[in-house]
Amino acid sequence: MKILFLNGPNLNLLGLREPDKYGNNTLQDIEAFIRKEALKLNIEVEFYQSNIEGEIVNKIQAAKGNFDAIVMNPAAYTHTSVAIRDAILAVQVPTVEIHISNIHTREEFRKISLTAPACIGQITGFGINSYKLGLIAAFDYLKG
Amino acid sequence: MKILFLNGPNLNLLGLREPDKYGNNTLQDIEAFIRKEALKLNIEVEFYQSNIEGEIVNKIQAAKGNFDAIVMNPAAYTHTSVAIRDAILAVQVPTVEIHISNIHTREEFRKISLTAPACIGQITGFGINSYKLGLIAAFDYLKG
Amino acid sequence: MKILFLNGPNLNLLGLREPDKYGNNTLQDIEAFIRKEALKLNIEVEFYQSNIEGEIVNKIQAAKGNFDAIVMNPAAYTHTSVAIRDAILAVQVPTVEIHISNIHTREEFRKISLTAPACIGQITGFGINSYKLGLIAAFDYLKG
Amino acid sequence: MKILFLNGPNLNLLGLREPDKYGNNTLQDIEAFIRKEALKLNIEVEFYQSNIEGEIVNKIQAAKGNFDAIVMNPAAYTHTSVAIRDAILAVQVPTVEIHISNIHTREEFRKISLTAPACIGQITGFGINSYKLGLIAAFDYLKG
Amino acid sequence: MKILFLNGPNLNLLGLREPDKYGNNTLQDIEAFIRKEALKLNIEVEFYQSNIEGEIVNKIQAAKGNFDAIVMNPAAYTHTSVAIRDAILAVQVPTVEIHISNIHTREEFRKISLTAPACIGQITGFGINSYKLGLIAAFDYLKG
Amino acid sequence: MKILFLNGPNLNLLGLREPDKYGNNTLQDIEAFIRKEALKLNIEVEFYQSNIEGEIVNKIQAAKGNFDAIVMNPAAYTHTSVAIRDAILAVQVPTVEIHISNIHTREEFRKISLTAPACIGQITGFGINSYKLGLIAAFDYLKG
Amino acid sequence: MKILFLNGPNLNLLGLREPDKYGNNTLQDIEAFIRKEALKLNIEVEFYQSNIEGEIVNKIQAAKGNFDAIVMNPAAYTHTSVAIRDAILAVQVPTVEIHISNIHTREEFRKISLTAPACIGQITGFGINSYKLGLIAAFDYLKG
Amino acid sequence: MKILFLNGPNLNLLGLREPDKYGNNTLQDIEAFIRKEALKLNIEVEFYQSNIEGEIVNKIQAAKGNFDAIVMNPAAYTHTSVAIRDAILAVQVPTVEIHISNIHTREEFRKISLTAPACIGQITGFGINSYKLGLIAAFDYLKG
Amino acid sequence: MKILFLNGPNLNLLGLREPDKYGNNTLQDIEAFIRKEALKLNIEVEFYQSNIEGEIVNKIQAAKGNFDAIVMNPAAYTHTSVAIRDAILAVQVPTVEIHISNIHTREEFRKISLTAPACIGQITGFGINSYKLGLIAAFDYLKG
Amino acid sequence: MKILFLNGPNLNLLGLREPDKYGNNTLQDIEAFIRKEALKLNIEVEFYQSNIEGEIVNKIQAAKGNFDAIVMNPAAYTHTSVAIRDAILAVQVPTVEIHISNIHTREEFRKISLTAPACIGQITGFGINSYKLGLIAAFDYLKG
Amino acid sequence: MKILFLNGPNLNLLGLREPDKYGNNTLQDIEAFIRKEALKLNIEVEFYQSNIEGEIVNKIQAAKGNFDAIVMNPAAYTHTSVAIRDAILAVQVPTVEIHISNIHTREEFRKISLTAPACIGQITGFGINSYKLGLIAAFDYLKG
Amino acid sequence: MKILFLNGPNLNLLGLREPDKYGNNTLQDIEAFIRKEALKLNIEVEFYQSNIEGEIVNKIQAAKGNFDAIVMNPAAYTHTSVAIRDAILAVQVPTVEIHISNIHTREEFRKISLTAPACIGQITGFGINSYKLGLIAAFDYLKG
Repeated sequence: MKILFLNGPNLNLLGLREPDKYGNNTLQDIEAFIRKEALKLNIEVEFYQSNIEGEIVNKIQAAKGNFDAIVMNPAAYTHTSVAIRDAILAVQVPTVEIHISNIHTREEFRKISLTAPACIGQITGFGINSYKLGLIAAFDYLKG
Repeated sequence: MKILFLNGPNLNLLGLREPDKYGNNTLQDIEAFIRKEALKLNIEVEFYQSNIEGEIVNKIQAAKGNFDAIVMNPAAYTHTSVAIRDAILAVQVPTVEIHISNIHTREEFRKISLTAPACIGQITGFGINSYKLGLIAAFDYLKG
Repeated sequence: MKILFLNGPNLNLLGLREPDKYGNNTLQDIEAFIRKEALKLNIEVEFYQSNIEGEIVNKIQAAKGNFDAIVMNPAAYTHTSVAIRDAILAVQVPTVEIHISNIHTREEFRKISLTAPACIGQITGFGINSYKLGLIAAFDYLKG
Repeated sequence: MKILFLNGPNLNLLGLREPDKYGNNTLQDIEAFIRKEALKLNIEVEFYQSNIEGEIVNKIQAAKGNFDAIVMNPAAYTHTSVAIRDAILAVQVPTVEIHISNIHTREEFRKISLTAPACIGQITGFGINSYKLGLIAAFDYLKG
Repeated sequence: MKILFLNGPNLNLLGLREPDKYGNNTLQDIEAFIRKEALKLNIEVEFYQSNIEGEIVNKIQAAKGNFDAIVMNPAAYTHTSVAIRDAILAVQVPTVEIHISNIHTREEFRKISLTAPACIGQITGFGINSYKLGLIAAFDYLKG
Repeated sequence: MKILFLNGPNLNLLGLREPDKYGNNTLQDIEAFIRKEALKLNIEVEFYQSNIEGEIVNKIQAAKGNFDAIVMNPAAYTHTSVAIRDAILAVQVPTVEIHISNIHTREEFRKISLTAPACIGQITGFGINSYKLGLIAAFDYLKG
Repeated sequence: MKILFLNGPNLNLLGLREPDKYGNNTLQDIEAFIRKEALKLNIEVEFYQSNIEGEIVNKIQAAKGNFDAIVMNPAAYTHTSVAIRDAILAVQVPTVEIHISNIHTREEFRKISLTAPACIGQITGFGINSYKLGLIAAFDYLKG
Repeated sequence: MKILFLNGPNLNLLGLREPDKYGNNTLQDIEAFIRKEALKLNIEVEFYQSNIEGEIVNKIQAAKGNFDAIVMNPAAYTHTSVAIRDAILAVQVPTVEIHISNIHTREEFRKISLTAPACIGQITGFGINSYKLGLIAAFDYLKG
Repeated sequence: MKILFLNGPNLNLLGLREPDKYGNNTLQDIEAFIRKEALKLNIEVEFYQSNIEGEIVNKIQAAKGNFDAIVMNPAAYTHTSVAIRDAILAVQVPTVEIHISNIHTREEFRKISLTAPACIGQITGFGINSYKLGLIAAFDYLKG
Repeated sequence: MKILFLNGPNLNLLGLREPDKYGNNTLQDIEAFIRKEALKLNIEVEFYQSNIEGEIVNKIQAAKGNFDAIVMNPAAYTHTSVAIRDAILAVQVPTVEIHISNIHTREEFRKISLTAPACIGQITGFGINSYKLGLIAAFDYLKG
Repeated sequence: MKILFLNGPNLNLLGLREPDKYGNNTLQDIEAFIRKEALKLNIEVEFYQSNIEGEIVNKIQAAKGNFDAIVMNPAAYTHTSVAIRDAILAVQVPTVEIHISNIHTREEFRKISLTAPACIGQITGFGINSYKLGLIAAFDYLKG
Repeated sequence: MKILFLNGPNLNLLGLREPDKYGNNTLQDIEAFIRKEALKLNIEVEFYQSNIEGEIVNKIQAAKGNFDAIVMNPAAYTHTSVAIRDAILAVQVPTVEIHISNIHTREEFRKISLTAPACIGQITGFGINSYKLGLIAAFDYLKG
C-alpha cells in the first residue's frame, strides 16, 4: 500500500510559520513522525510539497496508478483552487483532506473548502496529528 | 482516561436511515466497534444518544469532571444549535466533532457547522471510521 | 389505514393564540373535526402535540410501522429544524406538511421551510381546513 | 358555485412533459377527473390554459363576477409574474395556488412564489390530486 | 407634438383595484383628465393599455416615427421586464416612467425598476397627477 | 401657499459640478426659474441649501407651520440619511423628493433612497425641470 | 405583582462559564440579588432555568394567568428559536429580554434576536445588573 | 434535417437597435445569410420572431415533431423566462442558445441565463456569426 | 457623579413626532422626569440634543473629564454614524445606548446599531423609562 | 492565419476524466480532429496545455505577434483566474473561450466566468465540437 | 504650491485615541512633522480638522482655486459619506486619501471606502508616515 | 538596507498593456526610476517579476533573511491569492502593497485585496509613483 502526502503552499515553512497557529514541528518532523506510523501499518509513503498550484495538479495526476491514496493538506489552495478539485475528480485516487489548524475558528473565507467535496472526507484541527489521522483514514478506507 | 461519545438526533436509526448516505451499521454496531478500539488504548467509553437538543446540552454539562474528552456527532444540531456550541465553551471539556458522511458533498446548509468552532477539530466523511478517528484524535490530544 | 397528526410548538394554544392569524378553534376542536372526516374515509387517526423539537423527532421515529402516513404542522420548527427533516427522511413514512395561516404572507423567514423538502408536499393557508386537506392528501397518496 | 381552473405555461403538455416530475396524466385527464369530483360537490368548473402571461391576467380579470373562486396552477409564472399577483389582488376573487410537483424539492428559484401572497393559500406536491385538493379548498373556503 | 400614454397590466382595472393604493379614478377618467391637460399644451395624445408584455413591446416599437415621446406606466412589468427596457433602448423614443403609488413605500421588489434606466426619468407617487406630471415632463423635454 | 425648496450638499456648486451629469444651470438660475413658475401659480417659495445633514434636519423641523409643502433635493444625503427621513416623518409636512439626474442610471448605491419612503413621491431625471415638476406636484397635492 | 425570571441554556453554569464574558456570579447569586431587589418593589419572583427549548416554551405558556410579566434571558435560543418567539406572542404576557454580555460586541450571529420582536424591549450588556434592570423595566411597564 | 431559428423580443429591430452593440445587419440579412449557409449543409430552416414570451413558448411546443433542432436567441427573455426554459425541457427538442453580443461584458443581470441550462449549450458574442455557429452546432449535434 | 444625557436628531420633537411610536412626552418632560430620578441617586445630569452628527461627536469629546458616564439616544445616527462610534471609543467614557421604541420591531435597517458595539450595553423599547433604565445602568456600572 | 489552442488544467486527462461530463476523446484526438478542420480553412494551429496558471499567462503573452487568434479552454481557471483575464486584455490577441460541457448545468460557481469578459465571446456545451466551433468563430472574426 | 490637509472626525483626539491603533502622536505633532517635510519641497500647507461632515464638504468646496491639491484623512466618514465623495468630484481638486491604520485589517465595514473612487489614490496603514506619503504623492502628481 | 520589489502577473507587459490604465512606462523604466530613488536613500534594491503565483510565494519565502522589506505589486493575484497572503504572514518580512491604478475605480472584484491584511499597508493609484511611495514607506517603516 502506497500513500502520497501532498502539501500545499507555505507548508515548507512549518515550524517557523505562525507557530501559535501551526505549532513548532517542521515538515521534516512531520514526515519522520508519519514514516514511523506508516511503518506500523506497513504502508509506503512519499512526501511532496509545492507552492505552485499547477505542480500540485501535476502530482495528483501522476499519483494515478502509482499511489493507492492521497493525504492532502492543500493549505491556501483549499479555498481558491478549482483546478485541484478537478484533478482529484479526474484521477479518482481516494483522497483525504487534512488541516493542521481548525479552519472553523479562523477567517470566514477559510471555512469553505473548494477541494473537500472531491475528497472522501476532511480532518481539521488536530495539529501534527491531523497527518496521522489522515494516514489511518486512508488506510481504513482502502481496507474497507 | 474516559471519553464520552455523544450522538445527536436520528443517529439511533443508523443502519435503517438512508443507508446510501450513512451505511448499514447500527449505533450498537458502532458502539461495539469503538469499545474494541478503546480497549486497545485502555480508554473507558460511554455512548449516549438523544433526539433532544437540551438533553445533549445537559449531557455535555454533566461531562465536566466525569470525562476527559467528548467525541460528538451532533447530526442535525450541527447546523442549528448555538446552545450546544455554548455548552462546550462553558464546560471546556476537549471535544472532537465527527460526521459519518462528508458534509461538504451535501446540501449547502450542511457545510456550515455552528458547533465546530467550539471544538478542537472536526472529522467528516469516513463512515463508521469517523468514530474511530475521533477516538484516536481525542486520545492523542489528551496525551499531547 | 392509520394516520398520525403531529402538531408542533404552541399549537396547544390554538384558539387563544393570535386568533386573527390562527382562528378561534382549539386543537381539540380540530381533532374532533378531523375524527369526523377520518371516519368517513375509514381512517384511524391519532393526535399528538409537543413543544419539544426532540419529542417530535421521537414521535416521527415511533411512527414507523405504526402509522401509514403523517400529517404534520411543524409550526415554528418548520423554519429551524433540520432534525425533524432528517427524521422524516430516516423513517420514510409519507408525510404531508400543513399550515393554518398562509406562510407566504408573513415574515420573510416563514417563507422557507426546512421540513417541506422531506415531505410529499405542503398545504398552507386554509385555516382549520388545512388539516382536512392534509388528511385527504395523505389518504389519496396512500391509495394512489 | 362556479370555479375557474387556470393553468399556466406548458401545462398543455402534461403527460408528455418530464413525466418523472409531472406524471403521465394529460391536462384533459385532469379536467375529466376534476369534473367528476366537482359534480359530487355540485360545482360548475371551467378549465383554461394559456402560455401567455397577459392572457392569464386577462382571464383573472374576466373571472370577476363570473366565478366564485379560482384554482390556479401558474406553473413557470409562479416565480416571475408580478402581473398575475397584481391581477388577483385587483379582482379579489378568492384564489388557491396549486402545483403538481413539490416546489420545495426543486431548483432554488422555484421555492419562492410571487403569486402565493395574493392567494388564500398554496398546495404543492400531490400530483394530479393537487387539483382535487384545490377544488375542495376553494369549496370549503366559499362555504366557510 | 404627439405623445403615447402606455399602460401596463391591470391598469384597465383602475378605480376598482385596491382603491386605497391606486385611488378611485378609472383609466377612462385619467384619459379624460390628460386630454384636457394636453389640449392646453397643444399636444395630441393616444392612450393604450395591455396586459401582455410583448404587446407593450410591439406598441413601443410602433411608436418610432409616430410619436414624439412616450409616457409609460409599466405597472407590474416595471420590475420584471427586460424586454420593455430593451424596446425603449432600441427605438430611442424619449420615455417618461410614471407610477400612481409611491413604489418606495411598498414591497421590497417594487423599489427596483428594470425599465427606468432606459427612460429619461421616473415620477412616482402622485396618484392621477403622475400622469399629468409625466405629460409636462415629456413636453418640457421635447422643447428643451 | 408657501413652499420650501430644500437643497442638499454640493448643490450650491450646480453649473460647475460635473456639468455632463447636472447641466450648466446654477442654483441661482434654478431659483429664478422656479420663482417665475411659482408666480404663475401664486405660490410663495423659499430656497435653502446646506451641506450639513443636521442643518437640513433643522430646516425641515422649522418648516412645520411655516410652509405648506417641501420640495427637496437631498442630493448625497438621499442615500445615507435616516435623520432626514425621520425629520419628514416627524413634522408631517408634505414633501416631494426630486433629483436632477436619473438616479437609476448611476452607481448602484444611488438607486436606493432612504428618504423617499417618507415623501409623497419622487421625481428623478428631468434636469432643471425636476424642480418645476416638484413645484407642480406639491401644488396639486395641496389642492387635491 | 408576580414576575417570572426565565433562563435559557447553559445559564445554570454561570460563574463557571467563560467568566471573562459572563462574570463570576452564579445563577444562585443572581437569584439572591434579584430577590432582594424585588422585595424593595414588593414583587414576588420565581426563577426557572432549562436547557430545553420546548420546556421554555412550556413555562412561557404556563405563565399565562400566573405571572404578570416575564424577564427572560433566552441565551443561545435568542438566535435560533422561533418557537419561543411564537410562545410569547401566543400568551401575550409582557416580556423583557435581557442579556448579561453585550450581544453587539460578539459573533455576527449573536446580533440578531429572533425573540426580541415579540418582547416589550431588550436590555443587553450590563452583567448581573441586566437582571435588575429587567426587573425594573417590567415593574415600570406594569405600573405605566 | 429541419432547424427552427427562434428570435426573441426586439430582434425584429436588428440593424436599427443600438448598432454599436448589435451591428448593422437586419434580421432579414441574417436570415438570408443563414439560408445560404444552411443550403451548403442541406438543412431546411425556418425563421420566427416574436415579442411575446408565450408565443415563443407556443412555437417551441409546435417544434416538436416538426423540427430536428432549435437555434434560439431568446434576447431579453434569456434572463427572465422560466416558461421558455420549461418549454424546452418539456418538448426535448435539442436547442442551441445564441447571443449576438457577449453577454459577459454587459449589465450584471445579463450574465445569468435562465434558459441555457435547458439547452445543449450556449454561444455568445460573435455577432451575426453566432447564428452561423448555432447552425453548425445544431447540425453537428444531430449528426453526432 | 455626573452623567450626560445625549440626544440625537429629531428627539427635540418628542411628543409631536409619531406619538404612536414615541409617546406623548416631550424631551423637556423626560428631562424633568430624569432629574427627579437622578436626585434620588444623587447624580448630577445634563441634557443635550443636536440634529448634527458632528456636534454630537464634539459633545462626546467634551464629555471626557467632565462626565463620569453618558446615556445616549443616538436616534437616526444609531444606524449610520461611524463617527459617533469612533468618538466613544476615543474618549473611553462609559456609555449606555438607549432607544424609546423597540428597534427590533421596526424597519430592517433599524435592527443594526453601529454605535452599540462601542457602548457598555443597549436598552431598547421601554418608552420614557428607557431613559430611567439608562440612568440606573450607568449608575450601577460606575459603582460596580 | 495562425491560431493557438490553449488548454487549461486537467484537460491533458480528457478521455479518462469524468467521461460522462467530458466524453471519451483525448486531447490528442481533439488535436487531430481540429488539425483536419483547420486544414480545410488553411489555418495553421498549435496546441498547448498546462496545469499551471502562470504558464498559461506566459503562453498568452507569447502569442502576441505569433498568433492571429487564441481559442482557449481555461477549464478550472475560468472561474478563478484574474491573471488570465488580464493577460488577454494586455496582449489584445482576439480570444474565443470554449468549454466542452455546458457550464450552465453544473455547480453554481461554474456559471461565472472571470475570463469571458476579456474574450470576443464564449462557446459552451458542445463537447469536442466546441473546439471546432471555436476555430470557425476565430476564423470568421479574423476575416470579418 | 499649496496643499490642504483635511482631517475628519475624532482626528483631533489623535495621541489620546486608541493609541494601539493610531499611535501616540497628536494632530499637532503630525502638523509640525508635515510642515517640516513640506518646507523641503517648498510646499505651503494648511491643516484643517472638523467633526462635522458638512463642514468638510464646505472646506473641499472652498479649496477650489485656493489649493492645488488635498490630502484627506476622512476617518469615519470614509465609509459613510457620499457628500464628501460628491464634493471632490464637483470641485475637481486632485485629492489623495490617507489612513493612519491599515483599514484592511479592521472591521469589515472599514474595508470599503465611499470616497476613494473620487480620489487619485489611497494610502493606508503607515501611521504618521501616511501623511508624509500623501504629501509626496500629491506633490508628484502635481508635477507629473 | 535591502528591499525586494516583487511584481505579479502581466506587469512584464507594462507600457504595452492597457496604457490608459497603466501608463506608458515599462517595468524596466520603473526599475531604472526606483534604482535612482533608492540610491538617494542608500538602499539596495532587487526587481523580480513572475506570472506564476507559486513562484511569487517562493520568492517571498526566499526574502526572509535576505531582504529587510518587500514592496509588492501582486497585480491580479491581489484578489485571488490566499497563498501569497499566507507567505507574507509566514516569513514576517515587512511588506508594502502597491498598485499603479486606483483599484477603487475599477471592477467590483478589484476593490477587495486578499493580500493587504498581511501587509503593513497599501498604496494604490499613483501610477509609477506608487513604486516610489512604496520605497519610501518601507524605508520609513524600517527606520521608525
